[in-house]
Amino acid sequence: MKKYTIAPRGSMSLLSQLEINRLKQSNNEALYRLFRNCCLAVLNAGSTTDSSAEIFDKFHDFDVNLLRCERGVLLELINPPADAFVDGKLIVGMQELVEAVLRDILYTGERYNAQTLDSADTHTLTHVVFDILRNAQVVQPSLEPNVIVCWGGHSISEIEYKYTKEVGYQLGLRDLNICTGCGPGAMKGPMKGATIGHAKQRITDVRYIGLTEPGIIAAEPPNPIVNELVIMPDIEKRLEAFVRCAHGIVIFPGGAGTAEELLYILGILMHPDNQRQVYPIILTGPECSRGYFDAIDDFIVATLGEEARKLYEIIVADPVTVARKMTQGVADVKEYRRATGDSYSFNWTLYIDEEFQRPFVPNHDNVRHLNLHYNQEPQKLAANLRRAFSAIVAGNVKDDGIRAIREYGVFEIHGDTGLMKKLDVLLQAFVEQGRMKLPGSVYHPCYRVVTD
Amino acid sequence: MKKYTIAPRGSMSLLSQLEINRLKQSNNEALYRLFRNCCLAVLNAGSTTDSSAEIFDKFHDFDVNLLRCERGVLLELINPPADAFVDGKLIVGMQELVEAVLRDILYTGERYNAQTLDSADTHTLTHVVFDILRNAQVVQPSLEPNVIVCWGGHSISEIEYKYTKEVGYQLGLRDLNICTGCGPGAMKGPMKGATIGHAKQRITDVRYIGLTEPGIIAAEPPNPIVNELVIMPDIEKRLEAFVRCAHGIVIFPGGAGTAEELLYILGILMHPDNQRQVYPIILTGPECSRGYFDAIDDFIVATLGEEARKLYEIIVADPVTVARKMTQGVADVKEYRRATGDSYSFNWTLYIDEEFQRPFVPNHDNVRHLNLHYNQEPQKLAANLRRAFSAIVAGNVKDDGIRAIREYGVFEIHGDTGLMKKLDVLLQAFVEQGRMKLPGSVYHPCYRVVTD
Amino acid sequence: MKKYTIAPRGSMSLLSQLEINRLKQSNNEALYRLFRNCCLAVLNAGSTTDSSAEIFDKFHDFDVNLLRCERGVLLELINPPADAFVDGKLIVGMQELVEAVLRDILYTGERYNAQTLDSADTHTLTHVVFDILRNAQVVQPSLEPNVIVCWGGHSISEIEYKYTKEVGYQLGLRDLNICTGCGPGAMKGPMKGATIGHAKQRITDVRYIGLTEPGIIAAEPPNPIVNELVIMPDIEKRLEAFVRCAHGIVIFPGGAGTAEELLYILGILMHPDNQRQVYPIILTGPECSRGYFDAIDDFIVATLGEEARKLYEIIVADPVTVARKMTQGVADVKEYRRATGDSYSFNWTLYIDEEFQRPFVPNHDNVRHLNLHYNQEPQKLAANLRRAFSAIVAGNVKDDGIRAIREYGVFEIHGDTGLMKKLDVLLQAFVEQGRMKLPGSVYHPCYRVVTD
Amino acid sequence: MKKYTIAPRGSMSLLSQLEINRLKQSNNEALYRLFRNCCLAVLNAGSTTDSSAEIFDKFHDFDVNLLRCERGVLLELINPPADAFVDGKLIVGMQELVEAVLRDILYTGERYNAQTLDSADTHTLTHVVFDILRNAQVVQPSLEPNVIVCWGGHSISEIEYKYTKEVGYQLGLRDLNICTGCGPGAMKGPMKGATIGHAKQRITDVRYIGLTEPGIIAAEPPNPIVNELVIMPDIEKRLEAFVRCAHGIVIFPGGAGTAEELLYILGILMHPDNQRQVYPIILTGPECSRGYFDAIDDFIVATLGEEARKLYEIIVADPVTVARKMTQGVADVKEYRRATGDSYSFNWTLYIDEEFQRPFVPNHDNVRHLNLHYNQEPQKLAANLRRAFSAIVAGNVKDDGIRAIREYGVFEIHGDTGLMKKLDVLLQAFVEQGRMKLPGSVYHPCYRVVTD
Repeated sequence: MKKYTIAPRGSMSLLSQLEINRLKQSNNEALYRLFRNCCLAVLNAGSTTDSSAEIFDKFHDFDVNLLRCERGVLLELINPPADAFVDGKLIVGMQELVEAVLRDILYTGERYNAQTLDSADTHTLTHVVFDILRNAQVVQPSLEPNVIVCWGGHSISEIEYKYTKEVGYQLGLRDLNICTGCGPGAMKGPMKGATIGHAKQRITDVRYIGLTEPGIIAAEPPNPIVNELVIMPDIEKRLEAFVRCAHGIVIFPGGAGTAEELLYILGILMHPDNQRQVYPIILTGPECSRGYFDAIDDFIVATLGEEARKLYEIIVADPVTVARKMTQGVADVKEYRRATGDSYSFNWTLYIDEEFQRPFVPNHDNVRHLNLHYNQEPQKLAANLRRAFSAIVAGNVKDDGIRAIREYGVFEIHGDTGLMKKLDVLLQAFVEQGRMKLPGSVYHPCYRVVTD
Repeated sequence: MKKYTIAPRGSMSLLSQLEINRLKQSNNEALYRLFRNCCLAVLNAGSTTDSSAEIFDKFHDFDVNLLRCERGVLLELINPPADAFVDGKLIVGMQELVEAVLRDILYTGERYNAQTLDSADTHTLTHVVFDILRNAQVVQPSLEPNVIVCWGGHSISEIEYKYTKEVGYQLGLRDLNICTGCGPGAMKGPMKGATIGHAKQRITDVRYIGLTEPGIIAAEPPNPIVNELVIMPDIEKRLEAFVRCAHGIVIFPGGAGTAEELLYILGILMHPDNQRQVYPIILTGPECSRGYFDAIDDFIVATLGEEARKLYEIIVADPVTVARKMTQGVADVKEYRRATGDSYSFNWTLYIDEEFQRPFVPNHDNVRHLNLHYNQEPQKLAANLRRAFSAIVAGNVKDDGIRAIREYGVFEIHGDTGLMKKLDVLLQAFVEQGRMKLPGSVYHPCYRVVTD
Repeated sequence: MKKYTIAPRGSMSLLSQLEINRLKQSNNEALYRLFRNCCLAVLNAGSTTDSSAEIFDKFHDFDVNLLRCERGVLLELINPPADAFVDGKLIVGMQELVEAVLRDILYTGERYNAQTLDSADTHTLTHVVFDILRNAQVVQPSLEPNVIVCWGGHSISEIEYKYTKEVGYQLGLRDLNICTGCGPGAMKGPMKGATIGHAKQRITDVRYIGLTEPGIIAAEPPNPIVNELVIMPDIEKRLEAFVRCAHGIVIFPGGAGTAEELLYILGILMHPDNQRQVYPIILTGPECSRGYFDAIDDFIVATLGEEARKLYEIIVADPVTVARKMTQGVADVKEYRRATGDSYSFNWTLYIDEEFQRPFVPNHDNVRHLNLHYNQEPQKLAANLRRAFSAIVAGNVKDDGIRAIREYGVFEIHGDTGLMKKLDVLLQAFVEQGRMKLPGSVYHPCYRVVTD
Repeated sequence: MKKYTIAPRGSMSLLSQLEINRLKQSNNEALYRLFRNCCLAVLNAGSTTDSSAEIFDKFHDFDVNLLRCERGVLLELINPPADAFVDGKLIVGMQELVEAVLRDILYTGERYNAQTLDSADTHTLTHVVFDILRNAQVVQPSLEPNVIVCWGGHSISEIEYKYTKEVGYQLGLRDLNICTGCGPGAMKGPMKGATIGHAKQRITDVRYIGLTEPGIIAAEPPNPIVNELVIMPDIEKRLEAFVRCAHGIVIFPGGAGTAEELLYILGILMHPDNQRQVYPIILTGPECSRGYFDAIDDFIVATLGEEARKLYEIIVADPVTVARKMTQGVADVKEYRRATGDSYSFNWTLYIDEEFQRPFVPNHDNVRHLNLHYNQEPQKLAANLRRAFSAIVAGNVKDDGIRAIREYGVFEIHGDTGLMKKLDVLLQAFVEQGRMKLPGSVYHPCYRVVTD
């Protein structure tokens, strides 16, 4: 049995005896399990596999203990992955990721437990998102606006991956930082490209922000470039963190998850209170992804209307133009924030309806009762469509979702006939383009679109 | 009416909308009054008068408002002291002090209100002290041990004042930082001296820590050298902050207040659990203060016993030796903290009995019932004597105390005949040496020592 | 015999073996003598006496050796002043001064010897001034214009000294840095005041530049505040360094030396090529110095004409206005430099005639033949008057000058009757106001004004 | 015609008017041609071609002018490569490279012209190397020893290239910096690998030092990772810079050039005066390069003797061991430097015989008269063999060399029969392994080995 002890640095090295005791009392088994798994996930970062099952099997004898000493807290790692160490010393970047896990899972987890969050009102929910980001020093005073959120699929083609790197490179050359969901594919490419751009411009205060959540981190561990990792409590808070931190969003090709993200931000921006928001959004990909964006665009217009289309721009095969427009967009955002007196590092003025904040549990009953009819405001429809895609993601890749499908059969998605047809066409396109599944496997849909 | 708006910087610039609302809801009048008075006190720092009455009279039309904006919080100062500004801009050092007030009075004040503190156990009380200091970044990771707490009177002679400067100079030359109660006299001299020493050694990460409390800050505003100001909730927490932050204590001549401080630390160190503590304490002053220290020394031995004497050293008229011994003492402290695994910036292993933590309200009844007899452990006797001196300080200079004396007559201090005689002799010496009162006034004792 | 070895830091720690050998071969006795004396002078900085004789007597057994080691060069100090050390370690600020001496006397001294300089043309002379300042990192890229040169006497009254501190304080509050001749009196006061102003504004990249020359450094050692010391080869290069580094000049009361400085800058600014220069000059002092400035002003107008008066402003007893006008003036200088493309840290566009650059040797013959007649351009007359005052300074306080006066009698200053009368009146005023001599001694004039 | 003006930063922004004039007077055509070509080479860095001819053809209308302005010097680029710019702004890293060219070709070139260098003695030659490196801030005070020089071929196989990256990665993980000849292949791989290692360890003060010379820079432009570029005057000074800056050397597979480098360092270390030098040298490559190292090793033993073999270690296919041994070696170097008092950043104690310092002109006559016999000290034989390989490099790839071969036929290398056979075998192996030529071309030897 190999043991390794880490003395946390930075803010985690300054816990009071009371706080350490509280963390340990979390003999709260579930929290500890989560903590252990997240630690393992990040210690395994940079590995070539992204199957959480494989990782957990391989390191079934891994464990982590919290030791209290007078000076603070020590982490004892039992049988950790060997690649995280160099000559017996934990790689510093790895240690930072472990500290982020400790900070967010245990410490923040203690402050905001499930009960607190369930009963919280919308202001409090936003406060929680802010507080977690502030505690992680992702929001800071006196930062210039320069955070580009990049969304897109894990499983993308080599051509698409290279394109995301090229876009990241052009953004990095223009002193823009990258924020993604911190897995592989379209989440890694822009960061990798940006490092080259930043290096050429000799920019040293670079930020590669990874926003994740406990359900995903194991399967999609942060790549080693991520230097600011935050683990949000759930997917809804992660999405809110993305859209309040972003000074611009670039969306690469992806599957149901990317559709969920797009509907989330469009639904929010379509709310009348956000009419004046300056919020640059660009959908982009290589030439071969042109069809993909046409399909998305058609679906958006058909469901949310022409107004929605004005909120984004599609640019195919032109990384330089993407980066230039984002540079201009970010300058506009700065101007807007200055004018409204809003913070540069957290978009307070963006109104997010409670419907987008409350966690949606994707079980058969909830899916079946989703209101997918035209007779509602577009932003409400967007919220419900977002939930439908969220359910498909869960059914495709998340443990709970997959099990539920096995037991009860596929999700039934009901709604207006016209709307359902549009949805079916789009999903079918995802399937055909191989975006629903990892390359090499046959995709069995986890849903069925039902017209009323 | 002159208005001036400040946008806080640093951590205070990152408040969530919820936090700002909470601060404002503090329509909690008392808290706001306190906040307003503390702001005025620090904006008036460096002024030549230290009479709070005079200050409050002069600036009776001063006010401060908290304005919420999207980006955070703004402070609006109405009719502030003109000397705090240069060409219409608030002096940066002043702004830092105002931010400290905002942070400690309003923000921390919201977290720890009177009720919370009353019902808190000893661990929680220590946690509160730690949390306030951590929030003020006075405790930080990776600082070397080098904080010398300097205690002594506000009202000292010119010769004594110069001596405190010389000691500060010698400490500063040896890369030691100063922490005091942040008023004039023995609280300002060592800081002033240290700045010269630090400058000659080209030391730039200098720390001039001022620990104060709301009851005192107005009368004894922080001098402009203080670059880390913390306002603790009450005298007991301020004393705990002193002794947990200190890596050594230098005690200059003073009156009842200084006696209170000395008894506080001796009482704590005499507890059996603190037997192994490495804790350098030096009493020092110029040649003319030799008699003063003899009297103190006699009193300590007579009341607490020979053991107590081993806890400190008296060095007369030799600043270089004081500084050398402190340098050695601090090295020993570092070695001890390393060996015990304790933090360098907060002395967790120091055991402080609840009797020293609970606030003592110095009213006639409480004073009359103080147990001042020999038949108790020395550290208990020290705790009770500390309270007696605390009462005399209140009766001498604090508003509440003075009013109580006027109404009900002097405090009666009861106890063992022998003990009471020793106490009377010491107090009489303070009176004769002019340490009870400011120069120029006749001192009317606020106490009567009664033998049983 | 006490020995102390210093390993130089910074640029002096990186000498090649060849360079060290060259320095040592400077068995060049004269250079070594100079080096030894300058080292002693700065190690004695902060002492209360400013008599070089007294210093040299007291430390007659002081010596300094240059030791070569593989890694670079070591300085061995023999019997150095004890106050320069703390617990056996040289005070860091002292070490910096010693390194400055090594850099400027030995290293730069090797590059620019007397012969090189004698045969140099005006461009080369300016290059030498620039190169020495650059080597000392006094001129640097990307500094903002903020250097205020303060001139004035060593021997000033307590009231005048306090006034210089107050002006320095107001300048420091406005983020302006101080450059002086680095002795006591009006050279120390502004720096001392500025430290308080800087500290209150939390400005840390402060500059207290001292420009001196070998003939003066021993009698007027740099005060311990000076953090950038440069030893220029002679008085003329020191003056050129002052006026090319300055973004504004404040002139306090002084004697013949201050008159020399004023005539130097006025003579330069009156040259037609400098007509567009933006160059704020303020003469200032407390109420009691009003008469002094009236006399100076009269003399300037009477000799150089009304035009000269436009180049400066006299402000009596108003430090705040002095500082405000300097702040504005410095902003104008920045604008001017930007417009002309000139450097912010070295005024290249200022034309300095060779007459102001060539060293003037103040011997009887040279003084007697000074052309002090009206029939020349004002800037030429200024140059010659400057030399006359320079000779009086030498005769008053410099070794060579004093000896020459003893041997050959007083200097005879010839010139136009009217001009000579004006000069006599001014000098007489200096004598009466006690500006020629240190307090406590009787002044015997070293000059005689002769009308043709 | 596109023009672009650069204002140099850092030290190049602080030139005196005199210095700028001198640079411009360098109407010294040859120097300007060199300057122009080097500028073009670095502006083209990161391009995919490494044929200088192709580059010069493509940008035949490129030019660069030096403009004097009051503030310093401006560079005007005419028709520069578009890829060096982002939205009309020169990439910062490119600008640094251009500044390095300006500094080393023009400025240093003025200080040390060919004549100075020809007549210089050995101490002066070493001083020149030091002075150029110091001026480029490659040697600095207070750096820890951590520079690993990596040598090896430009033209290596993909497997070998990946191996050099892996070694660089392992070195970077251990906080070691990389110094190479700054072209592609084995000069780029280790830097690229180290960036990942450094990033994972969050090391920010990284150094990627490129040492080149005018004859090579155009064909092998610095890769964009190089953040410290120095252009040494010739190959011999470049080699001296390598061996005095190195704290360890890693040698990857290569051709005649790599053999030249290996003989250079071995010849130096075999000198009796260097017997005590601590100087870790490791030859390493992937499994497939085992034969290559066997051949090299045989040749060294056969020519220089068993002693030579003790100076290096061969490690095949084990990057982790290479990095660990280098880490240990560098620690030993530090210890040795400390013990001998030598500088950490420049190896002064290494004795380099004049034979290794004087430039060798590889013409037919010089090659024919090389003394390649056993009857001499091994280090002398090493020096001569080094020259032979240098000539082959020139005949293979350098312009002058190629032209000479065309005109006068191949170089004739004479020597001991036994020695010549060994040499022939080794060279034949290089040819067979494809190390003499770029992939895709047929190699025509430029030499003939002749036995006496």
